[in-house]
Amino acid sequence: MKQAIGVIDSGVGGLTVASELMRQLPNEKLIYLGDTLRCPYGSRPEEEIKQFTWNMVHFLMEKDIKLLVIACNTATAYTLIDLQQKLDIPVIGVIQPGARAAINATKNKRIGIIGTEGTIRSNAYTKALHMINADITVISGSCPLFVPMVEKGILSGPEAYQTVNEGLQSMKDSADIDTLVLGCTHYPLIKDVIQDVVGEHVQLISSSEETARETSAILELHDLLNKDDTFFEHQFYTTGELSIFQKLTTNIFSHHLEYLSKIKIDKVSI
Amino acid sequence: MKQAIGVIDSGVGGLTVASELMRQLPNEKLIYLGDTLRCPYGSRPEEEIKQFTWNMVHFLMEKDIKLLVIACNTATAYTLIDLQQKLDIPVIGVIQPGARAAINATKNKRIGIIGTEGTIRSNAYTKALHMINADITVISGSCPLFVPMVEKGILSGPEAYQTVNEGLQSMKDSADIDTLVLGCTHYPLIKDVIQDVVGEHVQLISSSEETARETSAILELHDLLNKDDTFFEHQFYTTGELSIFQKLTTNIFSHHLEYLSKIKIDKVSI
Repeated sequence: MKQAIGVIDSGVGGLTVASELMRQLPNEKLIYLGDTLRCPYGSRPEEEIKQFTWNMVHFLMEKDIKLLVIACNTATAYTLIDLQQKLDIPVIGVIQPGARAAINATKNKRIGIIGTEGTIRSNAYTKALHMINADITVISGSCPLFVPMVEKGILSGPEAYQTVNEGLQSMKDSADIDTLVLGCTHYPLIKDVIQDVVGEHVQLISSSEETARETSAILELHDLLNKDDTFFEHQFYTTGELSIFQKLTTNIFSHHLEYLSKIKIDKVSI
Repeated sequence: MKQAIGVIDSGVGGLTVASELMRQLPNEKLIYLGDTLRCPYGSRPEEEIKQFTWNMVHFLMEKDIKLLVIACNTATAYTLIDLQQKLDIPVIGVIQPGARAAINATKNKRIGIIGTEGTIRSNAYTKALHMINADITVISGSCPLFVPMVEKGILSGPEAYQTVNEGLQSMKDSADIDTLVLGCTHYPLIKDVIQDVVGEHVQLISSSEETARETSAILELHDLLNKDDTFFEHQFYTTGELSIFQKLTTNIFSHHLEYLSKIKIDKVSI
């Protein structure tokens, strides 16, 4: 199937998922839409999150995608089931792959979850973890300042350390977790800072890698893998300013330089 | 869905998959059938492998399973597509999850595959890897003496080291791989010996863990997870002698002692 995989996100965080999709599925074309203009979604009311997500989905469905990845935890928490029921293509969120990876990783069955206010308020991770294993203790907390910081392009340095330290204080105090899920696709961009703050004994789980792996599995099970080897170009769309998007794209895809020439970035309204 | 997950294997190797399923999906009941009497499948002709596999499938389908895991690489190589087309429940093999994990793990894009003669002859791993990424270099070799050794219960000691050393000689000579797929579910039982022989710089991929994770994903996507919390008992069936089966079950499940009391083992003919 030559059609593209559609990826939606509230901004640039989903680029970490796109990067992993490119690495693990080099034959697959991506069409990415980041709603940078209206980012962050995490502190918005439920109805608004649903409406904005559907706006993005309509934009991508017109481009004839074969599978949709919701690369935003907040949007996954509030729209995954609805989208799975209403679209006739497979829809993959980022919460369930992250939950499964955490269950696989934990030894003491104590898992921390950090995310936006919306994601944490939805309890989506706790539900996903407990549906599989009710014995897991879940400690969750929101970090509302992380996304705005990342969207400004601040990924390291004193300001990053201070923000992360303050944001994770209560998580560190309740202690004793051996696994911490980065329940927001922006957080892998400040993974090194988070790891320093929580300590080496805590294993960080990034949904990005896991989501890409499950996408690969679903594409194959549904016989949707691209077997055509003609040239294609990934397409990236943003509703906001091109400059920050370009900066972060370069940052995230720096280890995939070969792809940069194949990327087209456009500003759109949805 | 209260129904069980069915797991078939040519013998005891699939118990490593069962063990991971128990760990990652503690709410799910398993019905396992190991065709120990006719093991190993790996050196048998294709038609015989297909017939024996279908015998096992018929036995489990009568027990009303909701999903089938083919926990044997040789059986996966020759029957997966046929079973996926003919059964009306999801069917998961061990080759594709292992291939995806290897693609995720490799940095130098050189992946080694070891398996039975049947699995290697089928080229199933090479096909699975190249369908996703044609740039991967695959070095594969069969180790026909490993399965009979494991089925005898020899998992360590001088005889194990000698057999593994000889079996992996050509793999070591062609060198330069950074990832080695244990393309047979018996091999995780001698994983420590294999790791010693190939060296710490080579990352070993066990399909067992990956297959369990994909099973978890498929159960959830198809809304098949068990939400009932009444007591259940795992059922294990073997076509061969109970003694070796019991010994290895104890060995493999030793870190899951809580499950042992819930396991029923029977000898059957299919």
